[in-house]
Amino acid sequence: MLTFETNQVQGATNIIEKLVSLPFEKTQHRIDTLDAQPSSTDGGVMVMVTGKLLIDDSEHPQNYAQTFQILPDGAGSYYVMNDIFRLLY
Amino acid sequence: MLTFETNQVQGATNIIEKLVSLPFEKTQHRIDTLDAQPSSTDGGVMVMVTGKLLIDDSEHPQNYAQTFQILPDGAGSYYVMNDIFRLLY
Repeated sequence: MLTFETNQVQGATNIIEKLVSLPFEKTQHRIDTLDAQPSSTDGGVMVMVTGKLLIDDSEHPQNYAQTFQILPDGAGSYYVMNDIFRLLY
Repeated sequence: MLTFETNQVQGATNIIEKLVSLPFEKTQHRIDTLDAQPSSTDGGVMVMVTGKLLIDDSEHPQNYAQTFQILPDGAGSYYVMNDIFRLLY
C-alpha cells in the first residue's frame, strides 16, 4: 500500500498509475537521516528516511519523511509491503 | 526496538531507562500529519506521524518524524514492535 500525502493507493498497478500521474518531471532526494529496524519475526525490515526534496528546477528544497516496510517474498527477495510519504511544512 | 535519534535500544527495561534519562522535563507534541497502514497479515498497524515538538519552555518548535508499528499480542491487545524517532533540522 502507498500513502502519498493524503492519497491511499493499493496494489502494484494502481501504485504505478499514481506515480506516473505526478505533475513533476525531475526530483532529487537528499537523505538526512536513515533508520532501519527488524519489523517482523520472518525477516521484515522497516525503514524511516527523512531529507530534502528538490522538485524540477526549484531552488527551495522541501523537507519530507518517508517510511517503508519490506518483507521477504519467500524466493530470496523482498517486496514492498508499506510506503508512506509526506512533505513537511 | 526504539531508535531515538542515533541510539538503538532493545527491550522494555532498556527502553524505559533510555526515556527516563532524557534531559528535559516537559514536552508538547503538535501532530501535523498522521498516516496508518496495515503492516502484516495478522493485524499489525504501521503509523507515521510528523509534527512539531516544544521542549521545556522553548518558544521554538522543532519538527520531528516518528514511525511506530503495533502488533496484536494474541490476548486482544497490542504491543509496540518498532519505534523510530527523529528531530528534523
